[in-house]
Amino acid sequence: MGENIGAAARVMKNFGFSDLRIVAPRDGWPNPKAIEMSASAEDVIKSAKIFDSLEEAIGDVEFLYATTARSRDMVKPVLSSEDLGKNTSDIKYAIMFGHEKSGLTNEEIVLSNSILTIPVDPAYTSLNIAQSIAILCYQWSANNGVGASKAKTNIGKKLASKDELIGLFLHLEEELDKSGFFKVPEKRAQMVNNIRNIFQRSDLNEQEVNTLRGIIRSLSE
Amino acid sequence: MGENIGAAARVMKNFGFSDLRIVAPRDGWPNPKAIEMSASAEDVIKSAKIFDSLEEAIGDVEFLYATTARSRDMVKPVLSSEDLGKNTSDIKYAIMFGHEKSGLTNEEIVLSNSILTIPVDPAYTSLNIAQSIAILCYQWSANNGVGASKAKTNIGKKLASKDELIGLFLHLEEELDKSGFFKVPEKRAQMVNNIRNIFQRSDLNEQEVNTLRGIIRSLSE
Repeated sequence: MGENIGAAARVMKNFGFSDLRIVAPRDGWPNPKAIEMSASAEDVIKSAKIFDSLEEAIGDVEFLYATTARSRDMVKPVLSSEDLGKNTSDIKYAIMFGHEKSGLTNEEIVLSNSILTIPVDPAYTSLNIAQSIAILCYQWSANNGVGASKAKTNIGKKLASKDELIGLFLHLEEELDKSGFFKVPEKRAQMVNNIRNIFQRSDLNEQEVNTLRGIIRSLSE
Repeated sequence: MGENIGAAARVMKNFGFSDLRIVAPRDGWPNPKAIEMSASAEDVIKSAKIFDSLEEAIGDVEFLYATTARSRDMVKPVLSSEDLGKNTSDIKYAIMFGHEKSGLTNEEIVLSNSILTIPVDPAYTSLNIAQSIAILCYQWSANNGVGASKAKTNIGKKLASKDELIGLFLHLEEELDKSGFFKVPEKRAQMVNNIRNIFQRSDLNEQEVNTLRGIIRSLSE
């Protein structure tokens, strides 16, 4: 299906892959639907290589993964997708996907070095091919560090000082005393702790402390 | 797009997810294209819940992730997808996806507890929404186990629902309007976002929301 080829090309590009090879595409080539679904990854579609046979397509590949959901009666290593891309060497890898409906034949799988599986709910194992490609491109990239810069928190480096925080706490508690918020004196200490914990957990920066003090001032005036 | 909704439903089912919620679907509901693309996951489509507003859709959610590729000028924790599903508690999580073209607005992201990013090639960051959903369902499942017992953090508390949080926000903003806190009308929206982010970051429980509402009441009276 052209739509699947296009979706595959798009997600390949998302993770920095570009070498797309297609064996005997059902609807011929080029395929306008593939181009449409590829969005801005048209370059991957344009440079895709088309082959008549699998043997030609994998001619220069050094290590070939065969993706399959069903367990096969075959003596062959099986890699779970979580480990895809770990401990790779500087050789030419390829991942092979079968026909959308029927998957890879045993004759095709035999040509691989390893079976590659994606752990899915046993009650519903039929993954769309473009979704499988998305998951494996993502996982290779995550394990191999290609283009994968670790996200980090947006919280600014400069947190409010404890001085500023305590100033905020005292300001709030003074206003709460004035307004009669602490109705039961024996419970005041525990309630103060609870309220301070709420704001401690926010990792406030200086500007946010000022915003909160502005709120307290505005409400109590 | 119905095709994206269908593809999302299918891959959700592959990894054992079933609670699909859609806010204001562009082409109405039900959508024949969604059913067609869902393959054998029609049950996920059939049981999808449709809402007019985001606030209604997330009303009972305790911890909300906002998916976004672009870094936002927002003080909010950021989780990289590799860690999605690790150290989860027994609370109600949801992952929120934005419009296919424009993504989530800042007002929508503000309602989340954490931003969630998928590390992609910086040269081409535009992931198809159904591909994003595939990757995140896969990763949650890989880190958490399909049907496996959930790892629990030692926090062990129930978080406030989004309904309760939004109630808190609206209460505070109403009192701030009355007290003239927002002096420059053009800056109100940005200030509201900043204030909401402070409290989102605290991962408030229900009792703490009540405490804060008591504080607002007490100060403004």
